[in-house]
Amino acid sequence: MSEESMTPEEILDGIRKMRIRGAAEIGRRASLAIRLHAEGTLVSDKGEYISDIKRFARDALSTRPTAVTLWTGVTMTLRGIEDARDSEEVLERIRVNSERFINESKLAIGAIAEMAAKRVPNDATILTHCNSTAAVATILRAHELGKVKMVYATESRPKRQGLITARQLSERGVPVTLIVDSAARFHMKSVDIVIVGADAVASNGAVINKIGTSQIALIAHERRVPFMVVAETIKFSPHTFKGELVKIEERDASEVVDLKDYPGVAVSNPVFDATPADYIDAIVTEVGVIPATAAYEIVLHNEGVKVLSNLDFSGGWSGAV
Amino acid sequence: MSEESMTPEEILDGIRKMRIRGAAEIGRRASLAIRLHAEGTLVSDKGEYISDIKRFARDALSTRPTAVTLWTGVTMTLRGIEDARDSEEVLERIRVNSERFINESKLAIGAIAEMAAKRVPNDATILTHCNSTAAVATILRAHELGKVKMVYATESRPKRQGLITARQLSERGVPVTLIVDSAARFHMKSVDIVIVGADAVASNGAVINKIGTSQIALIAHERRVPFMVVAETIKFSPHTFKGELVKIEERDASEVVDLKDYPGVAVSNPVFDATPADYIDAIVTEVGVIPATAAYEIVLHNEGVKVLSNLDFSGGWSGAV
Amino acid sequence: MSEESMTPEEILDGIRKMRIRGAAEIGRRASLAIRLHAEGTLVSDKGEYISDIKRFARDALSTRPTAVTLWTGVTMTLRGIEDARDSEEVLERIRVNSERFINESKLAIGAIAEMAAKRVPNDATILTHCNSTAAVATILRAHELGKVKMVYATESRPKRQGLITARQLSERGVPVTLIVDSAARFHMKSVDIVIVGADAVASNGAVINKIGTSQIALIAHERRVPFMVVAETIKFSPHTFKGELVKIEERDASEVVDLKDYPGVAVSNPVFDATPADYIDAIVTEVGVIPATAAYEIVLHNEGVKVLSNLDFSGGWSGAV
Amino acid sequence: MSEESMTPEEILDGIRKMRIRGAAEIGRRASLAIRLHAEGTLVSDKGEYISDIKRFARDALSTRPTAVTLWTGVTMTLRGIEDARDSEEVLERIRVNSERFINESKLAIGAIAEMAAKRVPNDATILTHCNSTAAVATILRAHELGKVKMVYATESRPKRQGLITARQLSERGVPVTLIVDSAARFHMKSVDIVIVGADAVASNGAVINKIGTSQIALIAHERRVPFMVVAETIKFSPHTFKGELVKIEERDASEVVDLKDYPGVAVSNPVFDATPADYIDAIVTEVGVIPATAAYEIVLHNEGVKVLSNLDFSGGWSGAV
Amino acid sequence: MSEESMTPEEILDGIRKMRIRGAAEIGRRASLAIRLHAEGTLVSDKGEYISDIKRFARDALSTRPTAVTLWTGVTMTLRGIEDARDSEEVLERIRVNSERFINESKLAIGAIAEMAAKRVPNDATILTHCNSTAAVATILRAHELGKVKMVYATESRPKRQGLITARQLSERGVPVTLIVDSAARFHMKSVDIVIVGADAVASNGAVINKIGTSQIALIAHERRVPFMVVAETIKFSPHTFKGELVKIEERDASEVVDLKDYPGVAVSNPVFDATPADYIDAIVTEVGVIPATAAYEIVLHNEGVKVLSNLDFSGGWSGAV
Amino acid sequence: MSEESMTPEEILDGIRKMRIRGAAEIGRRASLAIRLHAEGTLVSDKGEYISDIKRFARDALSTRPTAVTLWTGVTMTLRGIEDARDSEEVLERIRVNSERFINESKLAIGAIAEMAAKRVPNDATILTHCNSTAAVATILRAHELGKVKMVYATESRPKRQGLITARQLSERGVPVTLIVDSAARFHMKSVDIVIVGADAVASNGAVINKIGTSQIALIAHERRVPFMVVAETIKFSPHTFKGELVKIEERDASEVVDLKDYPGVAVSNPVFDATPADYIDAIVTEVGVIPATAAYEIVLHNEGVKVLSNLDFSGGWSGAV
Repeated sequence: MSEESMTPEEILDGIRKMRIRGAAEIGRRASLAIRLHAEGTLVSDKGEYISDIKRFARDALSTRPTAVTLWTGVTMTLRGIEDARDSEEVLERIRVNSERFINESKLAIGAIAEMAAKRVPNDATILTHCNSTAAVATILRAHELGKVKMVYATESRPKRQGLITARQLSERGVPVTLIVDSAARFHMKSVDIVIVGADAVASNGAVINKIGTSQIALIAHERRVPFMVVAETIKFSPHTFKGELVKIEERDASEVVDLKDYPGVAVSNPVFDATPADYIDAIVTEVGVIPATAAYEIVLHNEGVKVLSNLDFSGGWSGAV
Repeated sequence: MSEESMTPEEILDGIRKMRIRGAAEIGRRASLAIRLHAEGTLVSDKGEYISDIKRFARDALSTRPTAVTLWTGVTMTLRGIEDARDSEEVLERIRVNSERFINESKLAIGAIAEMAAKRVPNDATILTHCNSTAAVATILRAHELGKVKMVYATESRPKRQGLITARQLSERGVPVTLIVDSAARFHMKSVDIVIVGADAVASNGAVINKIGTSQIALIAHERRVPFMVVAETIKFSPHTFKGELVKIEERDASEVVDLKDYPGVAVSNPVFDATPADYIDAIVTEVGVIPATAAYEIVLHNEGVKVLSNLDFSGGWSGAV
Repeated sequence: MSEESMTPEEILDGIRKMRIRGAAEIGRRASLAIRLHAEGTLVSDKGEYISDIKRFARDALSTRPTAVTLWTGVTMTLRGIEDARDSEEVLERIRVNSERFINESKLAIGAIAEMAAKRVPNDATILTHCNSTAAVATILRAHELGKVKMVYATESRPKRQGLITARQLSERGVPVTLIVDSAARFHMKSVDIVIVGADAVASNGAVINKIGTSQIALIAHERRVPFMVVAETIKFSPHTFKGELVKIEERDASEVVDLKDYPGVAVSNPVFDATPADYIDAIVTEVGVIPATAAYEIVLHNEGVKVLSNLDFSGGWSGAV
Repeated sequence: MSEESMTPEEILDGIRKMRIRGAAEIGRRASLAIRLHAEGTLVSDKGEYISDIKRFARDALSTRPTAVTLWTGVTMTLRGIEDARDSEEVLERIRVNSERFINESKLAIGAIAEMAAKRVPNDATILTHCNSTAAVATILRAHELGKVKMVYATESRPKRQGLITARQLSERGVPVTLIVDSAARFHMKSVDIVIVGADAVASNGAVINKIGTSQIALIAHERRVPFMVVAETIKFSPHTFKGELVKIEERDASEVVDLKDYPGVAVSNPVFDATPADYIDAIVTEVGVIPATAAYEIVLHNEGVKVLSNLDFSGGWSGAV
Repeated sequence: MSEESMTPEEILDGIRKMRIRGAAEIGRRASLAIRLHAEGTLVSDKGEYISDIKRFARDALSTRPTAVTLWTGVTMTLRGIEDARDSEEVLERIRVNSERFINESKLAIGAIAEMAAKRVPNDATILTHCNSTAAVATILRAHELGKVKMVYATESRPKRQGLITARQLSERGVPVTLIVDSAARFHMKSVDIVIVGADAVASNGAVINKIGTSQIALIAHERRVPFMVVAETIKFSPHTFKGELVKIEERDASEVVDLKDYPGVAVSNPVFDATPADYIDAIVTEVGVIPATAAYEIVLHNEGVKVLSNLDFSGGWSGAV
Repeated sequence: MSEESMTPEEILDGIRKMRIRGAAEIGRRASLAIRLHAEGTLVSDKGEYISDIKRFARDALSTRPTAVTLWTGVTMTLRGIEDARDSEEVLERIRVNSERFINESKLAIGAIAEMAAKRVPNDATILTHCNSTAAVATILRAHELGKVKMVYATESRPKRQGLITARQLSERGVPVTLIVDSAARFHMKSVDIVIVGADAVASNGAVINKIGTSQIALIAHERRVPFMVVAETIKFSPHTFKGELVKIEERDASEVVDLKDYPGVAVSNPVFDATPADYIDAIVTEVGVIPATAAYEIVLHNEGVKVLSNLDFSGGWSGAV
């Protein structure tokens, strides 16, 4: 199903059920959903119109309550609508905001891939985890530069997004070997660099990413294999700067096993984990290459993030990142 | 299918295809298979009889060429048959050898569980990986002593033997939570002790066990959570004392993914990995609790192992442990 | 004795003899002492008046020559007095400066406690060392949020300020267990977070705090227990940015033992030690949560600190932080 | 009070209340108490006599239920009494056993000091914790060899046995500096070797010693300062080889603080902690210098310990080491 | 040969053949060479004049293509020449630029030495590697302050620049002991601080310096000996912020051995290596003392570096730092 | 000069001046020297003959007073001579002893190489330090097995024995790359295994070997590259079991630099350093593969070493290993 042909509600449902995945993609799709919703519900009473849009926005935020980029996409899209003269201008502002957010978010990937690919050594064996747009883009760019010897893609249970990574790379001619998550340490001795994406970056440099990332970082650190995170600045969480802890989402047991077959057995299915700054060699953002502990700097000085901090979204941001 | 109702060939096939699992169980079943084969092929010409038995024994060794216990079970069962007066005595010796090997192997588990359960703290949260008879027996004994608060069982991709562990514990009333392999580090901060089995122990104290064990050991070490290996002395490899390296078996890609759906993608599917001695707090054997580096001592002084070392099995032991 | 009823000299004596403790409190009291002194010694000759105030200020600085906050409190209180038209304005400026310094310093504690308490996990076992206003405030706030299961308070020899911490928490209904300093590692395996204050923060992220802090940080790091420092930006030392090393004060042997009973025995009684940045997960300041290595950033960009850097206090700052 | 002038009950009380301290001394005194008791209660009915002695022995074991040396001293002293012809021979055997146990135990200290002192570098700064007979003997021997520049003795709260160490060394002319327990890391950078005793050594090489020992070991390990344990083989616990965990004794809160002054405050006062083998460079026993992980070897092969293992003391050994 | 008496070509040759060494010195000499060349080739046609100067500048850049300071020196010297009205002004600008660059570069050393010497403890044993102007200046300043007990200077094969360091220090009365590079760990236990220079600093805090620096940093880290880098901000590489990796120059085999005597033997002779930020306690720059991870901050905010970033040097900078 | 054509005095001089190198070779040559001396000085008075031989033996021991193998070679060669009936039998015993010692020592190398080569992975990049007979033999055996891709040989200043290693390997067709000692960490990321010899092994598992070995071990440990020591049991020091510390020999400054050119500069030129057991993965001896901490076991149980322990060599062994 193409992006454009989905209804706003289908988009929200897709985010909730993780058919739409990838932190940046979630933010972009939520922005699109708000635009589509606003286009489809235009009424002349501006107050009523905005109220309805905000109700929809709250629904959007509730689909993945801990996603920083979801919050970013929604708030950036609604920027300035209170100041519009009438409903038409509300819609116009939403259109402009959404387009800019989506474009800049996509451009960031290219800038990151360009810089990060320079950091891939020649004849490199790369390990990646889960399915990150920025990581895949970086690997493809490094492949174009003739640097990639082999990519180990972890399966990434329970949703097995590693299969998507394997296919995306393979289709573009990159040599890929799929491994189970438990085989990361076994293969690490032949890995030259680990490249992963991020769902969020906290102000003390901790990186929140798909479950298993932190143990791969530990394994890389054990052998001093460079562990590089590729992440747009839109993922740097201003909330953590004010003390919020990252709340790790638990998803349904059925993703792991059919519990009917295992009476009495419980399942814990956390989606993310936190990688401490000292296991990370560098974070490549669209503005440059930084050590993880400079996340604080990004949060404070990056223009995009500053804007976010000043936004006042009624209904608040209840998630805990 | 009950043990006794299987044919010798079915047993070998079961070992090859990992329907029969667990290092000690493989040794016992191989011993049984040889006995069954010998019972079914008795001929009066002793030379011919022994030749045939050895041919079958070589087939048995080839099912899992790197399994120490398989080698042990086969050689212990054939002990002294060359010296028998006639075919009847060959068979009789095989019967006696096989019975003793199987019994002692089973008794070892009980002794280990008794000692290892003492080392489980009260109100303990335990993490275990894969499905180890000795580890399950230890946890059940600790549960009888009222010490177990929760067991985290990792799924253990690709064969998902963790599901068997979860069911075995749950059926006996032990609280179990199933997690994906990638969630080990996420949960480690609430774990009091890790308990795993072993497929083989090398003379420098390295422990060979199911893929993923070494990264769980690293994660436990990161937080100084005790990492306890429970292993019968039959698994201590005399070959490693003479320099043999452990050769890690690669199994079929189809265990991980159906490659038809992923053209161009390769799969690496190693069955085991090696955990270095310095990540292991103690190995509990049936003779006592030792540091991993005392493996050398066990190899040199344990009576059972000594016998093994002196055996001369024509056709050799081509595996590399 | 209430604050207001003490004479300026009594305050200085209280600081010198550590009856007045806590880095921020020292700064505030020194500011108050200067105000009281200035109020009691007003003479019409502005030059003479300022000379006398500066003499008193030097006495104040000498009471704890290595305390950053003492230096801050004194210099902030004297700000701009040279530019006053007459003695009355000198006094007025001192009053205004002192009041603002004291108020902002107190407000900082509340802001820190609010943010830091968010970082305390639910049902937390906390360990704290010595008696820090900011740490106690954070724990009380976390207790209000229903998050505190138990607090381990170290005795903190030689002055045993841990007893004060235990009483302050206990009086507010927080469950407290007192332990000797040597028992920190024994209990660390059940601790979820360590929270301590700071006497000074150096520009490379090292934290100067009560003797024993650095070994608790090491113990926490050994088990990856988060080690959180709560510290007002007023404690970030601009002098270290210019190369000054932290000079650790030695206090009297009699705090440790009566040497008359131990002829020939010497005593070393350092008051503080330095915790390196890599054992610290986060520093919570009133402006936000930062990694320790961002101390440099605070020193450079924080407005309060900038002012300090520009002050030229005749008589200098002879301490070595 | 001289040893001989104490009654058996006074000795037990002295052990219970820690007036009699030091693991080896406890064993020797318990042995003496049993001899004195047996001398004072001789009756002609051998069965009755032995029953009474065993009752007293059980009382002795209960004074410090986790002390390996107490158990050793008691069982060694009672060795063979069941086989005596009559009460007189029971008493005679107890006398001989007791004398031998006490003598060999004392000789061990000398042998250890001789060997351990060789391992002290020239012009050494030594750090020791608590009050260990073997450690003090080693330091005095090193001092005789002209090798000791300075000894840091930690206070060792709560009982402050470090003061005894300081006095013992100072009286023999050894330069001593007393420090609080929290100052260990502060001074470690100028320490050349740490020397401590042991209360028990477990079969996986963990050393049980006075609370605080394990964090000093960690601090020494952080800087690669050699951490040497001096311990008689009598302290190597055969029970741990059979899976027993070390149970750490909790002593009375009043040793730490008078709780009447701190309503609502609890105290945890563990006497010992466990130092893992990987923080220990060498254990010096009377038979030689070994790595900590060779404890297993001592337990298995040392003649004295073997005898212990075979003893069957009715009433059992309920302690958990 | 004095600086002034060398021709521009001789200077470039001296840089190429490492007779002119030290990162800052290379930058200054290259700047001088350009000035001398410009002075000697003045022609009235401005376009022709600039073309010739740029050709010479490209030659200069090719002498040590990975040296950040070479690039800095060259580009700073050529600043603004395109905007000059005529050839005379081109030359005048080059003269002014060159003088300022050289002067500021030299002043930086003094400022660094002043601050860094404060961080040297009293009675210090210092270890230094290779021959760094800033490190030698720091040690000399610390010596003036009476703080230096002994300096260990590593030989620094293959070029043995450590001999120069030893002579420079010895001539000024500093006690120096020369050691081979392999003896660094042997002596580290008596070292109080390691001081080294830098050839370049990357935006994630990695320091590029003479081969062997990173293993000395590791050895210092093993014992927690402070490892201090002294480096002018001119060495902080803006290119690494944009993803460039540091390309380590390989120099001629003949520096190591005469290969004629060793047929079939290859030589690898890398000039630099990279020390990760987590082995570095502090970098002392002329603007202040920072943690290594603040390199990013220097790159972004330092005025001098900003200018560099904006320069557009035709012919580009092909080196990879 | 061939072995046989050297006089006894020339052999001792060769050992003293390190023309004769390699711990085992030193022991063998010393044994030979004693035989040659005894052959050349035979007198009929047995007492006089033995006295003279012992005087020569003491001279031999003084050439490299810290060499374990020198001591072993000398004492093994003199075994039983006191019990001989006459001078002829003294000589005969010396001949037999010497021949056996030399032969067994040479056979040990072959056994070690055979076992150790098994532990070299396929297509291996190996790093070795200095020039060890056992290490070279192991690498040559691995090369015969087709396993060696590249060997990095460190130069090994000051005597540059790495050049000998490079030539020995190159002559046999092994690909060798020579590097300076400082480049070990730079190349370690592409190394699969480090193989070094030993001069002595202490009872706690520490390995004494050529200066620089311990820092290479640290570097290998940093990346978890296996660090394998190959050493005959003759090098395991019984003296360390009795507390002797290893005394590291200092050799002449002139090996490092001509001090005439560097007035005021001192040189420290230690020959060996000590690698702690925890940086060593395995020691391969002629009896098998052991963890370093099993050195104690070898010292206690190895027959050859036991004999050594019982020898009473008048004149003693003044060296400190």
